[in-house]
Amino acid sequence: MTAFGNPSRIERLRTRMAQAGIDLIVSFKPENSFYLTGFNPIIYSHPVIALLPREGEAQVLLHALRDDHARASSFVRDIRLYGAWSTKVTMGLHWQAALQSLVTEAGFANAVIGIEEDFLPVSRHRELQGLFPGASFKDVSGLIMSTRLVKDADEIENCRAAARIADVGMDAAVEAVRAGGSERDIALASMAAMNRFWADTFPDKEVCDFGSLEGGAQNGLWTWALAGERMFMNCDNPTQRRPAQGECVSIFIWTIINGIHAENERTVMVGEVPEANRRALTSILEIREELFPLLKPGTPISALFNGTKAGLEARGYGKYLPGRIGHGIGLGAHEHPSLDARTDIPLEPGMIFTLEPNLRMPGIGATQISDTVLITPDGCEFLTQSVGGLITA
Amino acid sequence: MTAFGNPSRIERLRTRMAQAGIDLIVSFKPENSFYLTGFNPIIYSHPVIALLPREGEAQVLLHALRDDHARASSFVRDIRLYGAWSTKVTMGLHWQAALQSLVTEAGFANAVIGIEEDFLPVSRHRELQGLFPGASFKDVSGLIMSTRLVKDADEIENCRAAARIADVGMDAAVEAVRAGGSERDIALASMAAMNRFWADTFPDKEVCDFGSLEGGAQNGLWTWALAGERMFMNCDNPTQRRPAQGECVSIFIWTIINGIHAENERTVMVGEVPEANRRALTSILEIREELFPLLKPGTPISALFNGTKAGLEARGYGKYLPGRIGHGIGLGAHEHPSLDARTDIPLEPGMIFTLEPNLRMPGIGATQISDTVLITPDGCEFLTQSVGGLITA
Repeated sequence: MTAFGNPSRIERLRTRMAQAGIDLIVSFKPENSFYLTGFNPIIYSHPVIALLPREGEAQVLLHALRDDHARASSFVRDIRLYGAWSTKVTMGLHWQAALQSLVTEAGFANAVIGIEEDFLPVSRHRELQGLFPGASFKDVSGLIMSTRLVKDADEIENCRAAARIADVGMDAAVEAVRAGGSERDIALASMAAMNRFWADTFPDKEVCDFGSLEGGAQNGLWTWALAGERMFMNCDNPTQRRPAQGECVSIFIWTIINGIHAENERTVMVGEVPEANRRALTSILEIREELFPLLKPGTPISALFNGTKAGLEARGYGKYLPGRIGHGIGLGAHEHPSLDARTDIPLEPGMIFTLEPNLRMPGIGATQISDTVLITPDGCEFLTQSVGGLITA
Repeated sequence: MTAFGNPSRIERLRTRMAQAGIDLIVSFKPENSFYLTGFNPIIYSHPVIALLPREGEAQVLLHALRDDHARASSFVRDIRLYGAWSTKVTMGLHWQAALQSLVTEAGFANAVIGIEEDFLPVSRHRELQGLFPGASFKDVSGLIMSTRLVKDADEIENCRAAARIADVGMDAAVEAVRAGGSERDIALASMAAMNRFWADTFPDKEVCDFGSLEGGAQNGLWTWALAGERMFMNCDNPTQRRPAQGECVSIFIWTIINGIHAENERTVMVGEVPEANRRALTSILEIREELFPLLKPGTPISALFNGTKAGLEARGYGKYLPGRIGHGIGLGAHEHPSLDARTDIPLEPGMIFTLEPNLRMPGIGATQISDTVLITPDGCEFLTQSVGGLITA
């Protein structure tokens, strides 16, 4: 599974490193160390540290118990070990001394070291300052995030696969709504269908996610469903509540393939829903159509938000404006940037984000429709392709 | 679902705050803000900030789109909002200004503020310093972690439920091994069985986990299986590989109920495995029996490691020693402390950890057996109860 040789994002990142005067990136953030190495240990209670010099070969330092796994999946060849684990030969018990040796031997002890100030905990930062008193540290959070914003060909391919799985999950979820299932029945049927499709269709792809520092996420194919007034929970575990006739139920699906996420969300009407709710759904679908011509290179992201705002106001929904109408997606399920009024970044080919203008009207009803959209040289491609119209169960 | 009134851990924590001279804890770490509020938003791309004063009522500050969800699940009554979301009235767009108001109004602008230096990113720390130039900041990572080490009655109850689910998952996994399934078949059958059991048996319990800052973990009922030499991967997504006759396959299960994890791991022999591997498995089971009398209040954790070391050396396995033989478990799947030679903490009633002395012998074979164990006033209780002997498929 290992394909040595750097993906093109590494060169894009190095160009930015040169512009910013960064000699070496020392990365601890799970999403980023995966970006720089191709290795996700799934659980990060022992840090994985990626070292990317502006020139020359990258290295990765990890606990000995992750050695076999890393060798099977990383595109970085130079793997170093710390800790104690059976017969593994390591650089010592602790990552701190091992990192000090590696950086010093490579001649970077007095260099400009790029660190992730949006992630690096205070205590670890203090340790780094102690290990490299002659170095100067510079934040590279934004530099890495802006590189991540435009996806490489392999990332787009992975997102397309994640979106296909999410579409399979949506079909199964809608079927479960039609069968009269509870929120949990809907979620379980959908997750089972996605897992089976993954297991049979993508023999070499991984579905693990990036866990917390204390935990890990072995399988990131997730569906949840919120019925009726529970749509206002936005993100909650499914309950045993069954959608009643005349209610809407929202289906939320997140998937991940080789580190790259997709999102597919739909609102299903169960029987005849009240006119106010139906009108909200129709309005959102119309607004999505109105945004379509803007989904192309050059459009500032704020124009998508402002288009939504104008569309909602024109239909009398001015007091229900959301704070944003989507977000970047990739190694993060929710990553930079927000699609809001303040973000002026122009769309570029290779960007992927969710498009989800929606309404939350307390006491009246809600809508939840989201797609994962790729910007192409000529316009865009909807990677999720579930029926976007009104679905009636 | 909301039971107002503080769980007893809050009082234990406040005692420690008084001893350390901490006036107010400002918590951003997902596991800890959940510990202090009972609220897990599942996704943390907008921070949830828990404020616990040494005396008086706690508060929680969160994005407006999480308001309904938080009100339905937090035991903290005083919920404040930032951001913009439909008709929600908030303290302003940004958490920074809202936090500054809250802390200043409560009279803590010049107080001793406890922060999580093991989690708080450098950039957020800098923001806090700017918001409260008169405050002094003190690390409370260890203080919270040592409080978490001893579980409350509700946490023990949740761990027992998580362990029951894991046992159901193990039965289904072993059945799938017997049916000749691949690693993926085994994992999928096990996860489906656990999800069904959860959905039917625990109507009011949640199975979401704590995600990363960019992601979220909607469902944390996970099984993976590693066959033959793939056992050396330790933590990896399951593949389409099928265990062959004469091989072992390891089943790893992590579950979570209302934030508390359980772990259940077993090694299954498929037919007649080579004598060297069988002897390793038998030896590990014997060593577990030898440790049993030590599993009671007062035993220093290092004694469990040293007992394992002695047992392995006595059987000729001295060159395959692991770095640790288990770890704390609770809000983290892997939490403080490690069961290793350097950890002298004495066992106390209410502590929960994994017991997993195991062998990794390159070219020969491996074992993987782990249980979730609660220390009781008289000894211990194995919360996971799958057959611990040799399982043959």
